[in-house]
Amino acid sequence: MASNNPARGMRDFLPSDVRKRNYVIDVIKEVYESYGFEPLETPAVENLETLTGKYGEEGNQLIFKILKRGEKLRQETGDARQGLKESDISDLALRYDLTVPLARVVANNRNDLPKFFKRYQIQPVWRADRPARGRFREFYQCDVDAIGSESMTVEVEQIAAVTKILGKLGRDDELANFDDFVVLTNHRDILYGMLEAFDVPERSYTNVLVAIDKFDKIGVDGVIDELVGSETLSKEHATSLVTELFSGAGDSVPSADRSSAGKRLQDANAEELDRLEKLIGTSEAGRRGLRSVREFLRLSSDLQSCEHIRFQASLARGLSYYTGSIFEIRLDRLDFKGSIGGGGRYDGLIGMFGKEQIPACGFSLGLERILVVMDERRMFPPDIAESTPADVLVTIWSYETVAASLKLADEVRSYGLRVALYPEADKLGKQLKYADSIKVPFVCVLGESEIAEGKVTLKDMRSGSQSGLSIDDAVNEVRKGLSERQLGAV
Amino acid sequence: MASNNPARGMRDFLPSDVRKRNYVIDVIKEVYESYGFEPLETPAVENLETLTGKYGEEGNQLIFKILKRGEKLRQETGDARQGLKESDISDLALRYDLTVPLARVVANNRNDLPKFFKRYQIQPVWRADRPARGRFREFYQCDVDAIGSESMTVEVEQIAAVTKILGKLGRDDELANFDDFVVLTNHRDILYGMLEAFDVPERSYTNVLVAIDKFDKIGVDGVIDELVGSETLSKEHATSLVTELFSGAGDSVPSADRSSAGKRLQDANAEELDRLEKLIGTSEAGRRGLRSVREFLRLSSDLQSCEHIRFQASLARGLSYYTGSIFEIRLDRLDFKGSIGGGGRYDGLIGMFGKEQIPACGFSLGLERILVVMDERRMFPPDIAESTPADVLVTIWSYETVAASLKLADEVRSYGLRVALYPEADKLGKQLKYADSIKVPFVCVLGESEIAEGKVTLKDMRSGSQSGLSIDDAVNEVRKGLSERQLGAV
Repeated sequence: MASNNPARGMRDFLPSDVRKRNYVIDVIKEVYESYGFEPLETPAVENLETLTGKYGEEGNQLIFKILKRGEKLRQETGDARQGLKESDISDLALRYDLTVPLARVVANNRNDLPKFFKRYQIQPVWRADRPARGRFREFYQCDVDAIGSESMTVEVEQIAAVTKILGKLGRDDELANFDDFVVLTNHRDILYGMLEAFDVPERSYTNVLVAIDKFDKIGVDGVIDELVGSETLSKEHATSLVTELFSGAGDSVPSADRSSAGKRLQDANAEELDRLEKLIGTSEAGRRGLRSVREFLRLSSDLQSCEHIRFQASLARGLSYYTGSIFEIRLDRLDFKGSIGGGGRYDGLIGMFGKEQIPACGFSLGLERILVVMDERRMFPPDIAESTPADVLVTIWSYETVAASLKLADEVRSYGLRVALYPEADKLGKQLKYADSIKVPFVCVLGESEIAEGKVTLKDMRSGSQSGLSIDDAVNEVRKGLSERQLGAV
Repeated sequence: MASNNPARGMRDFLPSDVRKRNYVIDVIKEVYESYGFEPLETPAVENLETLTGKYGEEGNQLIFKILKRGEKLRQETGDARQGLKESDISDLALRYDLTVPLARVVANNRNDLPKFFKRYQIQPVWRADRPARGRFREFYQCDVDAIGSESMTVEVEQIAAVTKILGKLGRDDELANFDDFVVLTNHRDILYGMLEAFDVPERSYTNVLVAIDKFDKIGVDGVIDELVGSETLSKEHATSLVTELFSGAGDSVPSADRSSAGKRLQDANAEELDRLEKLIGTSEAGRRGLRSVREFLRLSSDLQSCEHIRFQASLARGLSYYTGSIFEIRLDRLDFKGSIGGGGRYDGLIGMFGKEQIPACGFSLGLERILVVMDERRMFPPDIAESTPADVLVTIWSYETVAASLKLADEVRSYGLRVALYPEADKLGKQLKYADSIKVPFVCVLGESEIAEGKVTLKDMRSGSQSGLSIDDAVNEVRKGLSERQLGAV
C-alpha cells in the first residue's frame, strides 16, 4: 500500500494549523486593504516559458515542471532518442514566486488596471528545494506591490503597513509580540556609490554584492575571504571596503523602551548616513542613494514605522532585479534572529513582459517564519490557540429524540453560535467524552425530561457545573463563558 | 516575446473577481463553521501513486503530472529508449479533487483526529480537460465531509447547511436569490432494488447506472437507446425500467410561494416513495433504501431544507464510490438550469488508504457555477459589485506637503476606513480623475490652506459636493455615505 504521508516537502494542514494560518492571513489582508491594496490571484500553473530565465540558473532548477499531455507527450517519448530535454516533454510549470506572475498580469491587463495599481497577493508557491527544517516545497508568500509610481511615498506606506501588521499580530503581553522587529534599509545606489568610491571595477559589482549578501552565514571575514578567493578583489582592497560597509551595522536595539529606542535609532541613522557620505565622496549614484534614504527617513519620521527603521549600508538583498530602496525585516530578540520579510524597488522587471517600462516596489512577508515565531512566543489569542470546532455540542438521547436534537442545534445556531451535533444516539458518557476530546467548552444535553419541560441541561465542560435552562438562557450562558475565555482567562 | 496570457484553461483573477470569490467563500466558511465543520488544507502536489487508480481511466488521463527532477530524470531520459512511460519520468501530480486527499489525511492521522471528523475544504483542483465555456483547468471545489458516522443526521445536517448557504447568498429582492434550488435525493439501494425487481443481471448494474446518469444530456429515449445499443438490455426491458424510474421526475417547482411549494413537495415525495415501494416489492436492498430516504425526509421535516428536497428515483450520480444517499442541487428557474453541487455517502473510499473501513458522507459545491449565476442574477451586495480599492483617496498638494498627506492618510485609517494615498504631488484635476477611475467614493483634498486651518476638504465623488471639515467630521461624513450605499441606494 502506498504511503499516506503528503509528498516530500509538502504539508497537510490540520484544523488547528489552518486556524492559525488564517488568523495571520486575515490580519495581513485587513491591514493591506486599509492602505488601498487590492487582492489579486494568479493560477498555480504558468506556461513554462513565462518562468524560465527569470530566476537565474539556480532558480530554474528549482521550478516544478509539468509533463506534456496526450499526443504531444507521445510524440516526444514514442521514438528512441538520446537525451530528451525537459523543455521537450514539459510545457507548464508551478508558480515559483508572486512577482513574475504580477509582472505578466500587469503587462497583459495594462488598460484594465488603474494607473497606480496596488495589489496584495497571498498564495502558495512551489520550489523543488531540498526539504529541511523550516524549508518546504510548498509555502505561502504574502506580497504587496505598488505599480506605476517612482514616488518615495510608496516605500513609506509599504513599510508603515508592515509595521501595522506586525503590531496587530502582537498581544498586550510583555514578550508575546513582534516589538523587537527592525526594518533594515539601504539603497542599491549607495552600494554602487561605495563600490565606485573604492575603485571596484564595474564587472565585479555583482560578485561583490553576492558576497556581501552572505554576511549572515559567513560573517565579515567570510565575505572578505570569498572576495579574495574568487580573485574579485585583493585582500587589502576587500578588507578596506568590507570593513567600512559593515562598521555601522550590528548594534542590537533594546525593545524595552520603544520610543527612546526610536529616537536613538534616528540619531544613529543620521550619523551613519553622514559617515557614508564622506566615504562615497563625489559618486553620482552614491549621492542619489543617500538622498533617497534620507527622504525615506524624513517621510517616515511622523509614522510609527520610524521607531523600527535602521539604515544599514551593508544590506544587499540577493535578488538581482532591485534597482533602488531595499528592505529587510529582522527580529532582534535572542529567541529568533532572522529575516521575516524583505522587499524593495524594482523598476526594470515589468518591462521584461511588455513594451513599457513601469516602476514598481514591493514587499514580501514570510508566512511560515511568522507562524513559527508566533507559536514560540505564544502570540495567538486563546480561541485560535485552543482551536475548537464548536462552541456547543448538542447530544442525542435516543433514536426517538433525534429530530428534537437536530431542531435544537438549528435553533442555537440561529443565535450565531457554532454548534456541533453528536451524530447518533449513544451513552451520555461517550458523548461527553467526545465533547472533551474536541475541546468544546459547553454541552447541551437534551433528554426526554428536558424535551418535556422545554429546557436544556447546559454543562460547562471546564467547571463541570450544569443547570437546566431555557434555550435563551443557555445561549446567554455560553456567550458569557466564551467572552470570558476571549479575555484571556485561559 | 512570450504571450502574457495565463496558461490555457487557467485564469487570472483581477481584484473585482477576487472580491466576489471571497465574498462567496466567506459565506460558505461561516455557515460550515456554524455546523462544527473544521478547516483542512492539503498540498496542491500529491505523490502520483496517491492519485492513480482513484478516478477511473478517463480521470487518470486528466491528472496533471509533474516531471521528476535532476538526476532521477536524467537517469530516465539520458539513454535512448523506446516509449518512455509517464510513470518513468513523473513522480508527483496536481490535486485532482478534495476527496482522495481527505481520505489519505484521515488514514494518516487517525489518532490525531476526533472520532467524528467534520471538515470543510475550499481549495483549487486541476484537471487537464479540454477548456470550454465555463470549464477550466484550475477551479475551486468547496467540499464538506463528515467522517466516522453512519447516522442519517450527517446527511440531514449537510443538506441543512447547504440550504443555509444558498439562502445567505441571496438578497432580499425578487429574483436576486437561489430560492429556486431543489435538492434532488435518492439512495443507491433504491436503484439496486429497482434493478433487482426488474431482473437486471448484476453484471449490468454499472452500465445501467452510467446510462441513467446521462439523462440530462440525452433524455429518456437516449438512455433507452444506449442500454439497447450496448446490448445491456432488450428494448422492451430497457423501456419498462427506464419509464418507471423517470415517470416521477421532472415537475418544475414554482418558487413564488415557497412554503406551499414545500408542502406540495412533501406530498409528492411521499407519493413517489409509495409508487417505488410497489415496484421494488421484496428486494432487500430496495426496502433498505426506501427506509433511508424516508428517514432523511422525516428528520429534515422540521428544518428549512425540507422546502427544497425532492426525492427522484432516477438520480444516479456518476461517481462509482457512492454507497448510500446521493444528492444533487439544481436551480430551477429558466435562466440557469443545471447542477451547482452534489454529494452523497461513500462508506468504502477511506478504506482504500488505511486498514480500517470508515463511513463517510460529503457534499461539494461548485464555486464557479455559483459565481456565474450570482453575476447573472445580480446577487452581489453593492460594495462587492462596485469593487473599490478604498473608501477615501487622500491627495498630495506639493512636494512640501507630502509628509502631511501621509500623516492624514494614517489618521483616517485609524478610524477603520480604507484609505489610498495618491502617490505623488500632481495637478488636483489628475488626482480627482484617478479617484474617479478607481471608483473611490470620497476624496480628502489637503492643500496648504487646509493644513493651515487644520481641516480637510472632503469631496463626495458621486454628488460632486465638497466642504471643509475637521478630520473627525470628514470621517463621519464618509461613514454616513458608505452606509447609505450599503443599504442599496446604488
